[in-house]
Amino acid sequence: MARYQLFYWPGIQGRGEFVRLALEDAGAAYDDVARGKGGTDKIMAMMKGQGEKHPPFAPPFLKSGKVLIAQVANILFYLGPKLKLAPRDEASRLWLHALQLTVTDFVKEVHDTHHPIATGLYYEDQKPEAKQYAGSFLKERAPKYLGYFEKVIEKSGGPFVLGRKVTYVDLSLFQLVDGLRYAFPKAAKRIEKKVPRVVSVHDRVAKRKGIKAYLASDRRIAFNEDGIFRNYPELDA
Amino acid sequence: MARYQLFYWPGIQGRGEFVRLALEDAGAAYDDVARGKGGTDKIMAMMKGQGEKHPPFAPPFLKSGKVLIAQVANILFYLGPKLKLAPRDEASRLWLHALQLTVTDFVKEVHDTHHPIATGLYYEDQKPEAKQYAGSFLKERAPKYLGYFEKVIEKSGGPFVLGRKVTYVDLSLFQLVDGLRYAFPKAAKRIEKKVPRVVSVHDRVAKRKGIKAYLASDRRIAFNEDGIFRNYPELDA
Repeated sequence: MARYQLFYWPGIQGRGEFVRLALEDAGAAYDDVARGKGGTDKIMAMMKGQGEKHPPFAPPFLKSGKVLIAQVANILFYLGPKLKLAPRDEASRLWLHALQLTVTDFVKEVHDTHHPIATGLYYEDQKPEAKQYAGSFLKERAPKYLGYFEKVIEKSGGPFVLGRKVTYVDLSLFQLVDGLRYAFPKAAKRIEKKVPRVVSVHDRVAKRKGIKAYLASDRRIAFNEDGIFRNYPELDA
Repeated sequence: MARYQLFYWPGIQGRGEFVRLALEDAGAAYDDVARGKGGTDKIMAMMKGQGEKHPPFAPPFLKSGKVLIAQVANILFYLGPKLKLAPRDEASRLWLHALQLTVTDFVKEVHDTHHPIATGLYYEDQKPEAKQYAGSFLKERAPKYLGYFEKVIEKSGGPFVLGRKVTYVDLSLFQLVDGLRYAFPKAAKRIEKKVPRVVSVHDRVAKRKGIKAYLASDRRIAFNEDGIFRNYPELDA
């Protein structure tokens, strides 16, 4: 098996992190291409479709042999059974994928807490709108999404979304909790009280051998104010 | 083969429409459950997870035999080969799925043109922000997304996204063009000039037997101001 090649912006966890966590948990061999020399140029070239039959719209994308796969949930759908982070039967795979696509929707809303008006504008140019967006996000949307995952874990019997075995969705839930704690420490404390099973998934994932080693390594980029989860204290409530 | 059961809000095309178009093009037997008696209650019950092992987060979802599938792109991924609207080989299916997920992202941004601050608020309570959002959407985002699909069709050799055979992604592109024309007639005219291949997909899809019959039937709900694509003239430019 050739090494996987992950293409994502260097310098941020961003959407690429959901893929990194799966690769790292499984101990898979991969290159984080854009963190090497000239990496950003390589991303841009592939998006322009130079020599690519299937040019992706945006990073992250993964090269596995000859196959190029874009979109986080699609990448994880592909990797899941290979990394033993998803069952092989169709019904379970589709269910897990629906859950991951719900993570995707949630991540977009997290992003929009600091960019509600336009991705092309700076945060500084949309601060009052961001405050309003973040307010309803923290009051309504985040509890709704996390409450949904809480119910899913409860129904599965736990401790993970599918039951006893960890999946890539659980790794993503770890990232959501971790990110919310970084971006909105006060609100996260309040929201977490109602979703103990989700918090327990976070804690269990953090202790897994591959994840623990990854988090302690310099491969884990620190959260920062260029990523999805940004710590702007004025948005926390 | 049992009939498919589609669960989606009655009264709007919304996200359910992307699934309806695939079912209708293929002439598949399906029930649009919530348009029958007590339909909305049935949706709510399934989301509450009453008796459902895999409760969905939001409509649309599709019941196929014992399998319940949520998220538009996931449903289409499942239906694609069965309805002969996708090839069966893995690489093509993943590529098509990435394209559909890009449609999903685009649809969310269309929705946000009238709801940039909070889905829980009325449009009337976020009009200035909507105008700003819609401005950059029409100037930057819509051309970027459609330009991407234009390039994809060009690379495939056309006339469809994968080449000679129509796929569910082409049906979705029909819906995007149709919706943009309804919501933003002036801007659509301008934007379409740069994406002739996308417009050609729209026109070819509109003439397909199943789609033509569907559009002329009362099963096609008219665009309206409760859906994703809303005609608010003040947002058009």
